[in-house]
Amino acid sequence: MRKRVLSGMRPSGQLHLGHHLGVLVNWVKLQEEHDCFFFVADWHALTTEYERTQVIRESIDDMVLDWMAAGIDPEKATVFVQSKVPAHAELHLLLSMITPLPWLERNTTYKEQLRELTTRDLQTYGFLGYPVLMSSDILMYDATLVPVGIDQVPHLELTREIGRRFNSMYKPTFTIPDQFLTRTPKLNGLDNRKMSKSYGNAILLSDTAPEVWDKVRPMVTDPARIRRTDAGNPEICNVHEYHKIFSDEKTVAWSESGCRSAGIGCIDCKKAMHENMDKVLAPIRERRKALVENGVSVKEILADGSSRANSVATKKIQEVRDAVGI
Amino acid sequence: MRKRVLSGMRPSGQLHLGHHLGVLVNWVKLQEEHDCFFFVADWHALTTEYERTQVIRESIDDMVLDWMAAGIDPEKATVFVQSKVPAHAELHLLLSMITPLPWLERNTTYKEQLRELTTRDLQTYGFLGYPVLMSSDILMYDATLVPVGIDQVPHLELTREIGRRFNSMYKPTFTIPDQFLTRTPKLNGLDNRKMSKSYGNAILLSDTAPEVWDKVRPMVTDPARIRRTDAGNPEICNVHEYHKIFSDEKTVAWSESGCRSAGIGCIDCKKAMHENMDKVLAPIRERRKALVENGVSVKEILADGSSRANSVATKKIQEVRDAVGI
Repeated sequence: MRKRVLSGMRPSGQLHLGHHLGVLVNWVKLQEEHDCFFFVADWHALTTEYERTQVIRESIDDMVLDWMAAGIDPEKATVFVQSKVPAHAELHLLLSMITPLPWLERNTTYKEQLRELTTRDLQTYGFLGYPVLMSSDILMYDATLVPVGIDQVPHLELTREIGRRFNSMYKPTFTIPDQFLTRTPKLNGLDNRKMSKSYGNAILLSDTAPEVWDKVRPMVTDPARIRRTDAGNPEICNVHEYHKIFSDEKTVAWSESGCRSAGIGCIDCKKAMHENMDKVLAPIRERRKALVENGVSVKEILADGSSRANSVATKKIQEVRDAVGI
Repeated sequence: MRKRVLSGMRPSGQLHLGHHLGVLVNWVKLQEEHDCFFFVADWHALTTEYERTQVIRESIDDMVLDWMAAGIDPEKATVFVQSKVPAHAELHLLLSMITPLPWLERNTTYKEQLRELTTRDLQTYGFLGYPVLMSSDILMYDATLVPVGIDQVPHLELTREIGRRFNSMYKPTFTIPDQFLTRTPKLNGLDNRKMSKSYGNAILLSDTAPEVWDKVRPMVTDPARIRRTDAGNPEICNVHEYHKIFSDEKTVAWSESGCRSAGIGCIDCKKAMHENMDKVLAPIRERRKALVENGVSVKEILADGSSRANSVATKKIQEVRDAVGI
């Protein structure tokens, strides 16, 4: 039997290369072999963005277009919007009843985010309960496989605990999901900080090739390499890191030795990297263009996917009600 | 315009006289003048009874029959089951996003119950969020008037705060309800502890007159009044407290002076009290009997009421989604 996969992404603005390499590349592979449910996590987005919700609504269609440009096929995977499947909210409520408070309070990711996301007030009931909502999403579909990044591992462990607790307290109802730790190349932003549109250091999936070059050209390299004839140190050069992700071994070696010997200039090095990076971006750009030209209706795709998700969720929530006994 | 009233009761077993005097008498009055929504709070019951849910399912029909026996008229009031209106769960989720955690943690009733209800584990996410669920119930119907007992005052204040916060963060969406502090005669159990079926000290609305007498007759009076000829102290006598609730002034005075002078015996005193108490209970018993004989279908009444509640809630939740912007 095909394994059921569930994964979601928050609508928080235009997608960038980090999203592609970190998530979408995996999704595209997964949809070929598994029964995939990919969802727009708009309720999740509210846990942190409740004070600026405009970006949520505005991002959804573009984000899903980016998914499809990256290769997600709504014929193969069920693509839906979380808030269009109200049973998630009901399951969240029911799971909240059996979720011990200390499980949430002691969650390491929770404590870390409270410390780090200081630009907004996350001292809310909803933010504390984020793992319960995530559990509802996963358990609702009896997902067997959940691709997670390393930072989501504690949350998935909580999902497994909550599912097990429900199954033993009432009756076996939920499939306990396995985690599938996605190994993704670490792609920093153009300035070597975490890639994020809000930092202005991101390469967007919708950027044209010249736009990308305009971002790559001024990238800071080894600051000590001032003149073309100075030898550089590729180990501290972000362009070299990008080569390791986008270029073949030969080109990586060329970049390294050329830098150390001052055999190549930084602009040559960046041009070669940009060319290889564009091998990833160009097909996405092409597909995006074709989708738009063919008049794809993201709204229809989401309505159709949400309706398929609702069929599964409506059946499951009835099973849950019966198990709880209300 | 008629005011909208919302009030709920947890299905936690058979109703007793305390429920009648504390809640139902008020409801019956309110339904004459206002647009009342009375609901079976089965999700609320889960916040404390998640480990023994059987009582919830089993209690619903009998409880609603008791409501009707006490005079609730489903033609006048909308009588429904909380869990049959799934929009409550969605509103609960949305309100959870904007509810500051300290508002819940510092809630005095919350801290008190954590201390007192030691027979079950209330260290759950759902129990902490109980006031958020209560807020959803109230705000969903734009209730203007919410009858509450004194212990629920902090919760209603929270509802008002959450409603105001939503209105100012997004746009004016919810009516901020006024509290209506119900003044209820304090009726202790037969043994002078809080009346509760689980203490075995309750007079049930479904008890027959002889059953009630069998409970009243052995009630402890002034323990120092051992012989019929001993004078008693009515101030420490629970039967005298009952007189004050059920008997007229003249009888209360008779009970008091007769006790102090040993002019009457405890059994005489109890008989008189029982007779007056039965003036409250007999009509309930009669109506209950008539309802059963007429083959009333509580299930149909609840289905009809829940459908009416759903019409209001479905419209309101759309308004809420629009206001939040997702």
